[in-house]
Amino acid sequence: MSDLQYHVDGELVPADEATVSVRDRGFMYGDAVFETLRAYGGEVFRWEGHAERLANSAAAISLDHGLTNSELQRRIAETLRANDLQNAYVKLSITRGVQPGKLTPGPAVHPTVVIQVKPLPRGGVATDPIWDAPATLQTVKTRRIPDDALPSHAKTHNYLNGILARLELRVSDADEAVMLDSDGHLAEGATNNLFFVDGEALCTPSLEGPILPGITREEVIDIAGEEGIPVKEGSFTLDDLRGATEAFVTNTTWEIRPVETVDGIDVGGGPLTTLFQRVYNARVERELYDGERLSSDEERTGDENGTA
Amino acid sequence: MSDLQYHVDGELVPADEATVSVRDRGFMYGDAVFETLRAYGGEVFRWEGHAERLANSAAAISLDHGLTNSELQRRIAETLRANDLQNAYVKLSITRGVQPGKLTPGPAVHPTVVIQVKPLPRGGVATDPIWDAPATLQTVKTRRIPDDALPSHAKTHNYLNGILARLELRVSDADEAVMLDSDGHLAEGATNNLFFVDGEALCTPSLEGPILPGITREEVIDIAGEEGIPVKEGSFTLDDLRGATEAFVTNTTWEIRPVETVDGIDVGGGPLTTLFQRVYNARVERELYDGERLSSDEERTGDENGTA
Repeated sequence: MSDLQYHVDGELVPADEATVSVRDRGFMYGDAVFETLRAYGGEVFRWEGHAERLANSAAAISLDHGLTNSELQRRIAETLRANDLQNAYVKLSITRGVQPGKLTPGPAVHPTVVIQVKPLPRGGVATDPIWDAPATLQTVKTRRIPDDALPSHAKTHNYLNGILARLELRVSDADEAVMLDSDGHLAEGATNNLFFVDGEALCTPSLEGPILPGITREEVIDIAGEEGIPVKEGSFTLDDLRGATEAFVTNTTWEIRPVETVDGIDVGGGPLTTLFQRVYNARVERELYDGERLSSDEERTGDENGTA
Repeated sequence: MSDLQYHVDGELVPADEATVSVRDRGFMYGDAVFETLRAYGGEVFRWEGHAERLANSAAAISLDHGLTNSELQRRIAETLRANDLQNAYVKLSITRGVQPGKLTPGPAVHPTVVIQVKPLPRGGVATDPIWDAPATLQTVKTRRIPDDALPSHAKTHNYLNGILARLELRVSDADEAVMLDSDGHLAEGATNNLFFVDGEALCTPSLEGPILPGITREEVIDIAGEEGIPVKEGSFTLDDLRGATEAFVTNTTWEIRPVETVDGIDVGGGPLTTLFQRVYNARVERELYDGERLSSDEERTGDENGTA
């Protein structure tokens, strides 16, 4: 049981009563796209980047859901407010909805929009990060799905590939999987992008491989540009990662998480990892500060109109 | 609206009220397995084969759902009875259920079991087949997911690969996609197995490729053995299919459906296709006859006990 409220099909509903039809294509086929978001101080961080990726995911599966970004943003804000959440995990899903019983999607779409939230401490400069300890990585046999079978830039409810990778970790002490592409090159974690330092540059598998274009990945590359750190986006081997002087993984929830070991080999964080974490936190701070300033303005406007 | 009853989590519910939680892993990740079944005369055809494949699918994703085949069979029978259905389409899904919010599956599984049904005329010798006309096939760019990314023998709710294939048909007149594997060899249709005749033998892509082991595929191979028709299970090219003297596609719903064209090239059914259809229908008949004989026995027993 939980007291949370979710947002389903335009309505706030108690989380325990939030459901979709068993005929919803999201349930039957994973025919849905999603974004995992973080709200800091009541605002979704990097909403524009997430909204753009969501649109690209929808386009990749020809899902013309017809919802504007501002409508989606409004529903997220409504959900956060209803739960009185400032710092939160937010999952936004859009499915192709219920259609007559055929695999081929019909052109008329009544999408199902689901927003799930839960409290997530802000982390960063204010408190501890969301993860307990640096990541221990393990290479798995499950390969990333090639782009010609399922577009790699689309974040969809077809997530068994990552689940199979994680299941392989049951026999090891590792807590994240390193997945290779069909050719045996480094791809990504089950839920995150890989970064490592080769002594000269910050390296990460390029988007030409079957790699999800992570919003935090993009942020890190942007930070590297600002800090004058060279970035190599390319095709790498597992040995490149194992032999790195530093490594970290990124996603929206974890932000920047140092890698302690890869297949039992010590890698560890280091000065660059710490630098990226510090600047990332500062950027979150800056957004918060901008957000607070906006709120104060709103309050002042409120006062002028005589409302609380 | 419909008057059908579905079976969800052990209970019969009106189809329009049949739902799953938005936290169900079947919805969030397509973390679920399923079977499409046909009931003829109130009995599921080739239940043992479907039950075995379902078990293999569940094992492939380490889904230990704990339900016996007889319990599943009982729920299907209950659903058919509640809807007064003799000839029906049946979809049985088992998900990993709701678990705490992590991608890695937890060991404690409370599976969600969903049974959807709808009337489907028996077809075969009694009436027309379920399809309106022979299939027109079109090769698509979307490739089958390799076995090392998602086990090909597992029938799961991760079905976007087939949906993307079908979406490519929007610009053509074709009604089914021909999908190739990563190496460009013939794999299967979006929802069916491919068969063709090369003049000497019945050919079909072998299960060494990324091919779902279709129950109807198995039935056809069994019929070929009985009829003394040589079968080549192997690795084939698109040209092999285009140059065939006959071709057909198989699945549980369509049974055996002749192929009229491949990429606009005439192929068509022929004497072997007709033979397979005839014997398949006869096997359905035989099951029906066995079923009716059983029913008569039951009725007689019923009479002896003084019930209708």
